[in-house]
Amino acid sequence: MAQIEIGNNGSAKHDDSVRLDSYISGFELDELIRRALKEDMPFGDVTTESLISSAAVSRAYFEVRTDGVIAGLDIAARVFRLLDEKIAFRKLADDGAHVAAGFIAAEAEGPTRALLKGERTALNYLQRLSGIATAVDDYCREVAGLPVKVTDTRKTTPGLRALEKYAVRAGGGHNHRFSLSDGVLIKDNHIKAVGSINKAIAIAKEKIPHTLKIEVETETLDQVLEALDCGADIIMLDNMDVATMKKAVVLINGRALVEASGSIKPEEIKEIALTGVDIISVGRITHSAPALDISMEII
Amino acid sequence: MAQIEIGNNGSAKHDDSVRLDSYISGFELDELIRRALKEDMPFGDVTTESLISSAAVSRAYFEVRTDGVIAGLDIAARVFRLLDEKIAFRKLADDGAHVAAGFIAAEAEGPTRALLKGERTALNYLQRLSGIATAVDDYCREVAGLPVKVTDTRKTTPGLRALEKYAVRAGGGHNHRFSLSDGVLIKDNHIKAVGSINKAIAIAKEKIPHTLKIEVETETLDQVLEALDCGADIIMLDNMDVATMKKAVVLINGRALVEASGSIKPEEIKEIALTGVDIISVGRITHSAPALDISMEII
Amino acid sequence: MAQIEIGNNGSAKHDDSVRLDSYISGFELDELIRRALKEDMPFGDVTTESLISSAAVSRAYFEVRTDGVIAGLDIAARVFRLLDEKIAFRKLADDGAHVAAGFIAAEAEGPTRALLKGERTALNYLQRLSGIATAVDDYCREVAGLPVKVTDTRKTTPGLRALEKYAVRAGGGHNHRFSLSDGVLIKDNHIKAVGSINKAIAIAKEKIPHTLKIEVETETLDQVLEALDCGADIIMLDNMDVATMKKAVVLINGRALVEASGSIKPEEIKEIALTGVDIISVGRITHSAPALDISMEII
Amino acid sequence: MAQIEIGNNGSAKHDDSVRLDSYISGFELDELIRRALKEDMPFGDVTTESLISSAAVSRAYFEVRTDGVIAGLDIAARVFRLLDEKIAFRKLADDGAHVAAGFIAAEAEGPTRALLKGERTALNYLQRLSGIATAVDDYCREVAGLPVKVTDTRKTTPGLRALEKYAVRAGGGHNHRFSLSDGVLIKDNHIKAVGSINKAIAIAKEKIPHTLKIEVETETLDQVLEALDCGADIIMLDNMDVATMKKAVVLINGRALVEASGSIKPEEIKEIALTGVDIISVGRITHSAPALDISMEII
Amino acid sequence: MAQIEIGNNGSAKHDDSVRLDSYISGFELDELIRRALKEDMPFGDVTTESLISSAAVSRAYFEVRTDGVIAGLDIAARVFRLLDEKIAFRKLADDGAHVAAGFIAAEAEGPTRALLKGERTALNYLQRLSGIATAVDDYCREVAGLPVKVTDTRKTTPGLRALEKYAVRAGGGHNHRFSLSDGVLIKDNHIKAVGSINKAIAIAKEKIPHTLKIEVETETLDQVLEALDCGADIIMLDNMDVATMKKAVVLINGRALVEASGSIKPEEIKEIALTGVDIISVGRITHSAPALDISMEII
Amino acid sequence: MAQIEIGNNGSAKHDDSVRLDSYISGFELDELIRRALKEDMPFGDVTTESLISSAAVSRAYFEVRTDGVIAGLDIAARVFRLLDEKIAFRKLADDGAHVAAGFIAAEAEGPTRALLKGERTALNYLQRLSGIATAVDDYCREVAGLPVKVTDTRKTTPGLRALEKYAVRAGGGHNHRFSLSDGVLIKDNHIKAVGSINKAIAIAKEKIPHTLKIEVETETLDQVLEALDCGADIIMLDNMDVATMKKAVVLINGRALVEASGSIKPEEIKEIALTGVDIISVGRITHSAPALDISMEII
Repeated sequence: MAQIEIGNNGSAKHDDSVRLDSYISGFELDELIRRALKEDMPFGDVTTESLISSAAVSRAYFEVRTDGVIAGLDIAARVFRLLDEKIAFRKLADDGAHVAAGFIAAEAEGPTRALLKGERTALNYLQRLSGIATAVDDYCREVAGLPVKVTDTRKTTPGLRALEKYAVRAGGGHNHRFSLSDGVLIKDNHIKAVGSINKAIAIAKEKIPHTLKIEVETETLDQVLEALDCGADIIMLDNMDVATMKKAVVLINGRALVEASGSIKPEEIKEIALTGVDIISVGRITHSAPALDISMEII
Repeated sequence: MAQIEIGNNGSAKHDDSVRLDSYISGFELDELIRRALKEDMPFGDVTTESLISSAAVSRAYFEVRTDGVIAGLDIAARVFRLLDEKIAFRKLADDGAHVAAGFIAAEAEGPTRALLKGERTALNYLQRLSGIATAVDDYCREVAGLPVKVTDTRKTTPGLRALEKYAVRAGGGHNHRFSLSDGVLIKDNHIKAVGSINKAIAIAKEKIPHTLKIEVETETLDQVLEALDCGADIIMLDNMDVATMKKAVVLINGRALVEASGSIKPEEIKEIALTGVDIISVGRITHSAPALDISMEII
Repeated sequence: MAQIEIGNNGSAKHDDSVRLDSYISGFELDELIRRALKEDMPFGDVTTESLISSAAVSRAYFEVRTDGVIAGLDIAARVFRLLDEKIAFRKLADDGAHVAAGFIAAEAEGPTRALLKGERTALNYLQRLSGIATAVDDYCREVAGLPVKVTDTRKTTPGLRALEKYAVRAGGGHNHRFSLSDGVLIKDNHIKAVGSINKAIAIAKEKIPHTLKIEVETETLDQVLEALDCGADIIMLDNMDVATMKKAVVLINGRALVEASGSIKPEEIKEIALTGVDIISVGRITHSAPALDISMEII
Repeated sequence: MAQIEIGNNGSAKHDDSVRLDSYISGFELDELIRRALKEDMPFGDVTTESLISSAAVSRAYFEVRTDGVIAGLDIAARVFRLLDEKIAFRKLADDGAHVAAGFIAAEAEGPTRALLKGERTALNYLQRLSGIATAVDDYCREVAGLPVKVTDTRKTTPGLRALEKYAVRAGGGHNHRFSLSDGVLIKDNHIKAVGSINKAIAIAKEKIPHTLKIEVETETLDQVLEALDCGADIIMLDNMDVATMKKAVVLINGRALVEASGSIKPEEIKEIALTGVDIISVGRITHSAPALDISMEII
Repeated sequence: MAQIEIGNNGSAKHDDSVRLDSYISGFELDELIRRALKEDMPFGDVTTESLISSAAVSRAYFEVRTDGVIAGLDIAARVFRLLDEKIAFRKLADDGAHVAAGFIAAEAEGPTRALLKGERTALNYLQRLSGIATAVDDYCREVAGLPVKVTDTRKTTPGLRALEKYAVRAGGGHNHRFSLSDGVLIKDNHIKAVGSINKAIAIAKEKIPHTLKIEVETETLDQVLEALDCGADIIMLDNMDVATMKKAVVLINGRALVEASGSIKPEEIKEIALTGVDIISVGRITHSAPALDISMEII
Repeated sequence: MAQIEIGNNGSAKHDDSVRLDSYISGFELDELIRRALKEDMPFGDVTTESLISSAAVSRAYFEVRTDGVIAGLDIAARVFRLLDEKIAFRKLADDGAHVAAGFIAAEAEGPTRALLKGERTALNYLQRLSGIATAVDDYCREVAGLPVKVTDTRKTTPGLRALEKYAVRAGGGHNHRFSLSDGVLIKDNHIKAVGSINKAIAIAKEKIPHTLKIEVETETLDQVLEALDCGADIIMLDNMDVATMKKAVVLINGRALVEASGSIKPEEIKEIALTGVDIISVGRITHSAPALDISMEII
């Protein structure tokens, strides 16, 4: 959880790089939201347009129904602004805030039509991202104080990666590579194709931009050693048992970053962290996080 | 689960309206996938392009790791075809098939580079949609044989609604309205704005296209009666307890469709179905379904 | 004609659901207009940019040249605003207003360049939509006071459906389904494919979202009876003569909505309305309405 | 009408520049059509998908119901191909062909679902463009044999200009400038802004690309003379009576092209042509042409 | 160079048609820039977002490092505004201004993050367009005072034609046709296909919009004569030597515009201009102009 | 130059990662090309469509007019294929081949219309990319045999970065980071904002994905030392003189990669390379490379 004290944005403790606009430009976000609104209203909202006067104005509250970590409030705000510039949206917490059931995370005021038309789209974003932030937080709390980073993977919803990577940071996690273009991860298949870890690393060093590190996926201690000898920058321990991981960390001894990977549950993470790995990457925080229950109430 | 017998596509039992292209045109699907691929490769796959020869060819298997219902195989196929037309993708089950851990759902053969570049995007779609189909199936099995439909809601991932509504059908569920444009649902706020259920229904009947039914959300039996008297086509029982639902069903007595709604868990659905409601809508099947564990292995 | 009293927008008589933004979001409208402007100026307006100073400012009037019903003023306004935010556009009537030849429907003031560059695009929208509203009004006046709705069809200009459906409402008509996704219309070919009206309705009820009504196209009284027995919600009388229509209405006797369809001229509509049908759908109001003559004059 | 003999495409009489792909690239046309299909099916065709088997195959005929000139058959073909590549579409006439009521202009064969899903969109294009071609033909026949060209204007449907300009050619007309970027037309407002026709022409000659001609709009013989003296390439006679036009033609005496413009009806065009003008531009052929009645029948 | 006196925008000497928005609408420019920003930041600026506080504010200067002509300042301004509306950008010269090394062409003030994120994209536009304007100026100065126009060609960067044609004007040049749609240029291959210059011109006159001039490419004096006799509006002398050009000009004797074309260097242009041709078109000013060296410095 | 022997694609010497589709997916390339074609033909090619029969077929040659390195042939091929699938395009060299004036790099055969319509767009891509590859080659030859890589920068044409980075590789160079998202480069301004190199590196290490290296821009040997002490992965020597660079290389002594940067000319690069730096980045190869002269001739 990147932000503890609500309303204390300017404080030294706040991690200023965990902002939505550090992940996606405003105009790209707008494009995403417009597609979502168009999807939900190919020809308008027949109920609301028939029944609600265009002059009607309301106030709405966004209430969290379960304990969790909030993320995506700026997106919700933007949904409403794109529908009607007269809507005022006020956050009552920052993304990354721990909130308890019953907490009012935001309020909005303006034309009732736009509030009702944007409600579901805003909540669909907000619930998913808060769900991710909450799932991340579940892992991070287990390893609080330990020198390890919990990171995401590329197992994100197609089209929403920037938003979901942002939610991971809001929940207190860190990011792994964003895409296949900005990180080198030499896997089993790559190694087989080239012949050996040695050769794979040599070719990669020759060809890839010199600004990228080289990570190698290993499954045995022999592979760990080979990767280390060839100058891998990061060594991924893939689905190793804890005992083997411990040995790997000892072998590596700080000469490369060590990343543990596999299908890890919150209750298992601490034991893994105690092996001394630097990074633990978890797919589950993005691909299987249940939505956080949040609702919009109009007064 | 809409399809039981694997490989029996032409049989009378197969529901032919549960096809991906009934929900989204091929060119729209391509557009979605292209955005996802671009997101994962703004400048190519630096690892694969460096290490794998453009002439290399491989075979890959898609293995399901947990019991569930598969959905999205045609999307996976399309991901690879958009990357390289030389890839042959063969489904070994139809969407909607019940599969057990270890089942090989599909195989692909062709240029290794394209297989590796498309792997994650294909799996991200496949795992999410199969997760949804599996969650739907969990509910449907509880009410098997009962005269009730389990339906989705509009609580879908922004931008992926057509795909997720398709997965719901593949899992054996039914669809609620697609968007705010194709269904009238008069909620509390609409009623308050107009003054009464009576007035709201009258206005809606006058203004909306005559091809749409009118659904009214109710929280009390009085509201149920009022909606019924005014000619509501569908009456939603929102967050009512089971006893009240039973009374509502008796009151309505077939004069309107009855929909139960609320945050319903699989273990609760049978009791609700036994009240005699016609439809049970469940948000959880789309917003909180964990991904089904599926992996791609290259031989 | 949905709006009689000019300048009396807030009055109870005004139908507040007949607003452009009930049919299309502002950002979608902008997208449409931008494409139109780009089409008319792939590389700017060579005449105007050469001859008119960027500092020049003018006033322009939009004069209606023939009696009719105006529609599309907000689109015209938006055309100019997208070209130059300094343009002030003032409507002198609301969409839906009956106007006589010589009426000034709007005035605009601002940079001359933008006025000249936007003139044709603004008028192209305005003339077409006003032409549609006027054509609708021609039909509606014939059946004034009768309990029947004149509706549009899907015979609209590709890409402009939302705008044209809006113009139909502005002219006093009602909307039929917006698209193939939001209305079920079982036609001859569907019936033949399935085997019988009976079977077609049964399948449709099972598969389509429960929020949609089922309409059946009939050509004989036998078909009308069959559709009625199977619980069709709407029965379309397709190209029937007036005498048969009368019989159909008597047979149906309020148990389903009745829609008359076919190539109907204004002078024929009253006789059809008097048969007691609920809805008369007319393709001609969108596909063959001549443009209303409107010009822009710069002072 | 650019093409008389049906099935005689290769003949010397056929104007080979009147082809759809001379006006719009295939990929742009596809983009237009996709937007139209998406508009008509945001979430599929609920009726057809429910009732028609995906394996069903049919034949469909496109029958013209009124005498006219056909245009747009290649667009109709493309609509179906974009929906399903298995559809075979066969033209039985070329665009530009004169056809009588009852004529079968094309047939299509393939998956029934795609035929039904594309029917309306294909017809919406076909009817509009054929309506335009027919309207143009009405004018052209009046001046057959006279040395005059009937041209369109920029009064086209926003977003469909290329298609409509093509239909004008198919109907036997010629094109005026395509957009504000490719033709200089100095109007009243431009002249007033600069001070005189003289000055306006001089500035335009200095600034515009030397590949463009300069056309000046005139309302009096004095203006005609001034434009002529300054070297205008084309002189438009705007809303002049026939007697004045005659005098203008004599004055100009071949030193510039002469264009008659104004709201001209078919029955008035011959008299205008006989004044000796070179070009007669008619807005009505695009903005007010009624659709040609064409239907699709499935056997 | 279209603008000599810096800060003297309103003066009579300034050519008011040389404005960016005469070439491209604001919304199109924004689209271009957004694509460029997205290209440079698929997932944000990892360095800046990590290190610079979102509250930090800075001032930046745009310094020209080599003598040249500036062009593109409004684009640079727009880059920053699209990133953050709080950025104030102030031009210290107009496009078209001659500037010397060390000149500060603009300054910007606002959030440091946005300044750093937009720096490269803004400079990439600015340097390229200024490079073009400078190259144009190199040619124009050689022929200062002579009655000849230096024009561009269609040899521009794909996707940036409007911007580059604008830069040509800013540098003091003129524009040739914008695209294949707005100018007729009959080349060797066209002539061969048709049979003769005579026939080619006749067909073109019949078919093309009457608003376009007809230009013919010639390589010999015989061809010049033939084109002249057939009424070509513009005669291009393609790769002729200076002596032949002189003869051609004499032959043509004002009856058509004469354009010299070929791979011409600045030092050769004066001699060509002295032959009396009206236009000299130069591909090099767009396809091979080196960038002008400009940097952004933050204080 | 990545490819020496023409026609020897399969040879071990060929660098298989230098392929266009390693930089940009086929569908993205098509999108780029379509925008370019639309730019050059908003309404078709008026000359060609008027004069050339749609049945005409021709052969065309692409002749290089100056010595250089070719790049972009697959793009040229794609331009023609998008215009007409019947065009056969045959490369006679691979991208990266050294070619002499007079060399025929490719030939195309098919419909004459499509050849003429695509000519300029194809050449505009081909000439620019070949110009870049040639410029890169000029640098690379100077340092042939030395253990140094010549790399590009982010000073590319907005919208064409992937293509230009590809051309750099084709010319024998290497790539620097692709965008602000995939490389950390701590510049002067970042350091000032944070307070020290030390602090900047510490924060970056904490926040950025662990897959990215950290590069620091230095101007003095003191800064070099500080960056080295803090664990910078790459140290950029910005605009240092050769003597200082030599000292920096000695100081660093292999503990970090060393990159020389600044405005470097081909004749200066060898001296810099001899200082022992690992990488020399050159903006000029993308922002100021003159087009390679290539023409298309139709027989």
